Amino acid sequence: MGKTIAEKIFSEKSGSDAYAGDIVVARIDQIALQDGTAPLAIRSIMEMGLEVRAADRTHFFVDHAAPSPRKELSNDQKFIREFAEKVGADFNPPGEGIIHQLMVERFIKPGDLAVGADSHTCTYGALGAFATGMGSTDIAVAVVLGKNWFRVPETFRIEINGRMPKGVYPKDLILTVIGKLGADGATYKALEFHGETIDGMYMDGRLTMANMAIECGAKAGLFKSDDITKAYLAEMGRENSFREIKPDEDAEYEKEIHMDADIEPVVAKPHNVDNIASISEVEGVNVDQVFVGTCTNGRLSDIEIVARMLKGRKVKKGLRLIVAPASRSIYLKALEKGYLKTIVEAGGLIAPPGCACCVGIHMGILADNEVCVSTQNRNFKGRMGNPNAEIYLASPATAAATAIKGEIADPREFL
Amino acid sequence: MGKTIAEKIFSEKSGSDAYAGDIVVARIDQIALQDGTAPLAIRSIMEMGLEVRAADRTHFFVDHAAPSPRKELSNDQKFIREFAEKVGADFNPPGEGIIHQLMVERFIKPGDLAVGADSHTCTYGALGAFATGMGSTDIAVAVVLGKNWFRVPETFRIEINGRMPKGVYPKDLILTVIGKLGADGATYKALEFHGETIDGMYMDGRLTMANMAIECGAKAGLFKSDDITKAYLAEMGRENSFREIKPDEDAEYEKEIHMDADIEPVVAKPHNVDNIASISEVEGVNVDQVFVGTCTNGRLSDIEIVARMLKGRKVKKGLRLIVAPASRSIYLKALEKGYLKTIVEAGGLIAPPGCACCVGIHMGILADNEVCVSTQNRNFKGRMGNPNAEIYLASPATAAATAIKGEIADPREFL
Repeated sequence: MGKTIAEKIFSEKSGSDAYAGDIVVARIDQIALQDGTAPLAIRSIMEMGLEVRAADRTHFFVDHAAPSPRKELSNDQKFIREFAEKVGADFNPPGEGIIHQLMVERFIKPGDLAVGADSHTCTYGALGAFATGMGSTDIAVAVVLGKNWFRVPETFRIEINGRMPKGVYPKDLILTVIGKLGADGATYKALEFHGETIDGMYMDGRLTMANMAIECGAKAGLFKSDDITKAYLAEMGRENSFREIKPDEDAEYEKEIHMDADIEPVVAKPHNVDNIASISEVEGVNVDQVFVGTCTNGRLSDIEIVARMLKGRKVKKGLRLIVAPASRSIYLKALEKGYLKTIVEAGGLIAPPGCACCVGIHMGILADNEVCVSTQNRNFKGRMGNPNAEIYLASPATAAATAIKGEIADPREFL
Repeated sequence: MGKTIAEKIFSEKSGSDAYAGDIVVARIDQIALQDGTAPLAIRSIMEMGLEVRAADRTHFFVDHAAPSPRKELSNDQKFIREFAEKVGADFNPPGEGIIHQLMVERFIKPGDLAVGADSHTCTYGALGAFATGMGSTDIAVAVVLGKNWFRVPETFRIEINGRMPKGVYPKDLILTVIGKLGADGATYKALEFHGETIDGMYMDGRLTMANMAIECGAKAGLFKSDDITKAYLAEMGRENSFREIKPDEDAEYEKEIHMDADIEPVVAKPHNVDNIASISEVEGVNVDQVFVGTCTNGRLSDIEIVARMLKGRKVKKGLRLIVAPASRSIYLKALEKGYLKTIVEAGGLIAPPGCACCVGIHMGILADNEVCVSTQNRNFKGRMGNPNAEIYLASPATAAATAIKGEIADPREFL
């Protein structure tokens, strides 16, 4: 019987003939932890009192509170650094960038099984890896044993065809998918993205879409590997990491969803990711802060769109524009290409590589009754540090248009 | 009888023949407030219930917590913005830069009398302005009336001659002066800096020295205006703001201090600014974080020194280097000259224009038992957010050498 991408990876990693619904014990290729969750995992590891076997596949990142805004968090970061040094694991201090971006740039290969102590670990599916977030205790088991148990998920096949019109981006597509499925519409399932729109999509766009799979409950958001994957890996200096991974033609899917890429730009309104509205329904809402960045949309092509739209224009007086490149290498490329200069000249502010204000820890917390348009993946009440504020999720283009007008704006007006 | 710079300015601004010891009511040219102290001043203004007469000379800056790390501070910032809009005062949001740098770039003229709700308002003395920090209630009076009372201070004349040797900078000079005078050695006095070393000193260096006058208790740190002042104002597009201000030859000084510029690089050891040691006494101390920035040393020439020393070198693994340009224009110049690129390539992190971690609010708080070398002006216990950490104050060159070696290092090794 044919297999989905998830079934193929779990078969290989468990050394069995695995299908949806099976429980398998599988070898894990890569493990990622960030500063918010790593201390819990490390304490669990210490309590187990066992030898750490997967240190060479374990990566720690300080990105959520980077650089630290509170001494308690600074102490956590020091605790992580000292543990990583002790066991010989990879440690990435403040300024390197976001966990998921760095995993994708440096370590993830098509066909990998990866886990992370962060819900947006599903990002790596863009490269054809099965990657999912887990609780800190399960991650501790993975670090110690180098494997863990998994239930092989059923897969939804999402087929997107047609050409994205001007002003529409992968972020609009994935928000639309989540709006259709609902926030719990794919709980414990895998998503597989197919169709001509996906086949022609650049890697940054695939990463945006895979990143948000969890927002409809999915464990993973998977793309087959292809020439675009190969080119991306080559750009990262890892061409040898490529291998082909794709579902069998006769793979069984629990559901098939067809969608046309010819949509309008959309936003997710407060306070849920599946609360989708067309841009025309929300245009004119007054906005206090625009944030471009995160593991969803902090990549070079995202920053490029913002810079191109801001070139020769100014951020609306009274609005704060915060842009955070997702990694040191993206920061340097955006700097070399003049994007950072354009954004700062227009009135924006560049945060260091990291999660910035996305998780509400620092670097742009909203005041009461303020409204933010953000390129991040979650708009829950209080997400950006204040339950009395509102967050709209949008593409970088919609974010840039909003920064120029000071109110939610249609990006097509500035393209 | 001849007058000091302070006596000349107070005479002019009070319309009287003022000398040290006199109490005068003087017209204030410029008023500066930052996000930490402005809310208190605004509440005092509101309680007075009087018309605000000096709105056109009043400037609000969000720099201490920029962008905001906590919703309470975000609410304060919104409160300030709304007040500034209501009365028609200047408001500078996160990302513009540090209060004192922006006041000097945009508003301060030689001969001005300026007050600020921040102790390092004395920075403006580098341009020949009498500028001093005041409590928020006194600042409220200044905003409402456009004037306030002052006791004209006695002046210490500090004469520095000779050439600064390689590796020695204005920061080393002013730390040495503070070491000689002691932290309360000039309380309520004005300092006047003279001598051939001062006459030949670039404006960034004068700003560093004036900035730290308060660290020996002085109300102001004054420089006469000259061709260097004129050139600086021209560079800021304000050549018409120049006027000559200098003391009379027969001015009376309470004390005269003579010093030779031929000194060693120095640091201020924890936990006091006057706890000065020669670099050779502290070399080899293990360091966790290096911070370059602030109203003391976050200017272009400071960032240039750091970039030149880091060029082709790497920040020591395990050490965090945080660099925060003091204003948007400095950020852009440092970007255009390639300094930011060099620093990020070496492993450093660029914080947005603002105070960053200097005041211990965010952007690089130290963990327990960590050691920081900083270019800022204060190293009091807990200053950077953790009373169980230690801060050494140094020049940008000493900071850069330390970032390379991972321990306190002599800058002459890398020049």
